Amino acid sequence: MMCLLVCETTSGQYETALPAAAAIEVLHNFSLIHDDIEDQDKERHNRPTVWAEWGIAQGINTGDAMFVLSHIALHTLLHSDVPPIHQTRKVIQRFDETTLALCQGQYLDISFETRKDVAVEDYLRMIRGKTAALLAYATESGACLGDASAKTIELYHQFGEAVGMAFQMIDDELGIWGNASVTGKPVGADLRQRKKSLPVVYALSSLTGPDSVALRRLYDAGETLSDNDILQMTALLERAGARDFIRNLASEWQERALLALDKAGPAGPSGDLLRDLTTMLLTRTY
Amino acid sequence: MMCLLVCETTSGQYETALPAAAAIEVLHNFSLIHDDIEDQDKERHNRPTVWAEWGIAQGINTGDAMFVLSHIALHTLLHSDVPPIHQTRKVIQRFDETTLALCQGQYLDISFETRKDVAVEDYLRMIRGKTAALLAYATESGACLGDASAKTIELYHQFGEAVGMAFQMIDDELGIWGNASVTGKPVGADLRQRKKSLPVVYALSSLTGPDSVALRRLYDAGETLSDNDILQMTALLERAGARDFIRNLASEWQERALLALDKAGPAGPSGDLLRDLTTMLLTRTY
Repeated sequence: MMCLLVCETTSGQYETALPAAAAIEVLHNFSLIHDDIEDQDKERHNRPTVWAEWGIAQGINTGDAMFVLSHIALHTLLHSDVPPIHQTRKVIQRFDETTLALCQGQYLDISFETRKDVAVEDYLRMIRGKTAALLAYATESGACLGDASAKTIELYHQFGEAVGMAFQMIDDELGIWGNASVTGKPVGADLRQRKKSLPVVYALSSLTGPDSVALRRLYDAGETLSDNDILQMTALLERAGARDFIRNLASEWQERALLALDKAGPAGPSGDLLRDLTTMLLTRTY
Repeated sequence: MMCLLVCETTSGQYETALPAAAAIEVLHNFSLIHDDIEDQDKERHNRPTVWAEWGIAQGINTGDAMFVLSHIALHTLLHSDVPPIHQTRKVIQRFDETTLALCQGQYLDISFETRKDVAVEDYLRMIRGKTAALLAYATESGACLGDASAKTIELYHQFGEAVGMAFQMIDDELGIWGNASVTGKPVGADLRQRKKSLPVVYALSSLTGPDSVALRRLYDAGETLSDNDILQMTALLERAGARDFIRNLASEWQERALLALDKAGPAGPSGDLLRDLTTMLLTRTY
């Protein structure tokens, strides 16, 4: 949707960007299928995940097939002479670079599980690849396919990236403090899996004394965490100011996003929709 | 190597095909990484597999990253004006189609594990996707990038596909009767995992009476197979004539391959190397 709206606001028509938008959507879903295997998540949005239903082998292979389908969608751009070929080439090349950034972010995310020294900067580098890169590509490719100027393309890239950064931070907050019936994940799911999400990374690096020891012990222990452990962890995070920290940082990125969007100056109804969609994405309260 | 040799014999230079050849090699290795996870194989060529060394999560993600790298390699073709753009477009489009065929073949392969009614035709459809499609692409794309005629491109496609079919059949034979110290797999590895490889598919569909009951019981039982079970299975396969059947069929495909290659008429030293490489691939005796 982001890709189509940017294409429409820059060129007056969204149709040119359909192959790229389809590729982005399918790529995102491919990454979720593999993600669920990697995280051993059996449910997503209250439904069984692909591997939970069909086994790990078919799950991996289904993800691979969707990855191929994303490229098949994208490459239909080569059959058309609109936009000019140099823009099409760039869109194809940047798709590859984006998916590579995605894998690099995923690598960091997985490696954080066994690392004890994850800093806030490491975390930001991780979500820049894992989440922000694809949103940046969505808006950038929309502008590219709308044959916008290099400067406008860059602004839309910044806009999408900032939306992605803010979105992931909000997602991290919801992974701990979200309402399970809406997110479709059990309360404290990220804590239960000992994910090094932003609140945890922040708390681990800022707590001192007994609180620090307590949180570290819960995160390092091999045993399954009880409901009581989860409550204790949540309390420690709040005492560290992790919730405020993440909310403030998410707001900063949200402002950056809106600033870049203003500079890009999206015109017409699709410009309004772009602003609305951004607000909607970044004010999920569940 | 197949791709480069075909490009050289059709155009006099192999360099044009380097991006495609790199893409094929990396794609093949990506598929092995995911394959090893799907099959739960902990060793390949006497070395630990990626997932055995780094865990399933990093294994899946590493495969995904290599998949991306194969595309990055391929798309450097778009930066050059040699060969003509219509050939480049075809090479990119056929790469996607090939990788999709690969996933479809893999889907069948995995599903065969739990199916009891796999026929020889099902098996052939499976290896056409899983193995032959990539070899067919290697030779076809080499011809395409050598800017050969449509007829020559088609002959090289047939050649590569037939080499792939024969190669997989020989691989299946070695998976049961091969020398473990050379193949790097334990003796009877495919039987131990109850793989529905060609000898087994053939024997299950052709044996009758007590032999059929015995083989089916060994394949359907949930328990781990003992060395004695493996010996018994191998004897049943030989009694069914499965080894002769697979050798004859492999020879037929080998003849088809050489016939298509003769018709394509590869010239010069690279033509000779192409014939040598084919012979080498199809006469592995270990």
